[in-house]
Amino acid sequence: MISRLVPVLLAAASVVAAAPAVAQFAKSEDAISYRQSAMFLQAQHFGRVAAMANGRVPFDAAAAATNADLVATLSKLPWAGFGAGTEGGKAKPEIWKEQAKFKELSDKLQANTEKLAVTAKGGNLDAIKAQVAATGETCKSCHDAYRNR
Amino acid sequence: MISRLVPVLLAAASVVAAAPAVAQFAKSEDAISYRQSAMFLQAQHFGRVAAMANGRVPFDAAAAATNADLVATLSKLPWAGFGAGTEGGKAKPEIWKEQAKFKELSDKLQANTEKLAVTAKGGNLDAIKAQVAATGETCKSCHDAYRNR
Repeated sequence: MISRLVPVLLAAASVVAAAPAVAQFAKSEDAISYRQSAMFLQAQHFGRVAAMANGRVPFDAAAAATNADLVATLSKLPWAGFGAGTEGGKAKPEIWKEQAKFKELSDKLQANTEKLAVTAKGGNLDAIKAQVAATGETCKSCHDAYRNR
Repeated sequence: MISRLVPVLLAAASVVAAAPAVAQFAKSEDAISYRQSAMFLQAQHFGRVAAMANGRVPFDAAAAATNADLVATLSKLPWAGFGAGTEGGKAKPEIWKEQAKFKELSDKLQANTEKLAVTAKGGNLDAIKAQVAATGETCKSCHDAYRNR
């Protein structure tokens, strides 16, 4: 009886172990949609600040600050969507094999978007240009390593 | 020569008139992805507060406040994605014919999510339950009128 229970208990234990990451989402597809939605919104609002930094649209200090604030908030979100058992989408499987490096890059992004929000509030276009470039490099380094085209 | 120019000028003028709504997005599909992404994230974070209000997960005051804050921020976003020329997705065409009513409902949602954020910070579960219900009603009334299943 006990030997029959063991596989059930092990299965239950592995569900519990995986729970903290997956429990926020009803199913794996929701986690994938969640991280993709957060990444898309982040890219849109970062793109609006970048367009000013690159001179493609006129500099509007208030709009830059609002968009940079949103980027800082949104950049905190995607990572909860990369929990155990949520492989798929454009995410390379390396993410789940190199968790420390992935976390390091996601932390670096969040540090850069926080700096961008502070810089944008300062209203100095040259400083914004420099911080847009630094933030964009962080996006790129993580996409190069962990996103399928 | 002037009479030949008139249609060109009129066409240019209509592009300019439509520009404020569409200009934020490179193409109509981006506007649709944007509003769907914002709605999805909003629903996820609202769902986490609602799960506590409904007793499906244990009440965690700090998590409720964080999620309610995110809902308030995210609820400001989708509307920019419903500009002229962005019909499609699950959005009913009535949105573009009933702009005043649509705006009234989107304003009502934002007022409710602001209240939810303030209420969640207060930490009183009964008050949170009431404001989750009020906010959920606002979601539903707009979805019933303007979202295809």
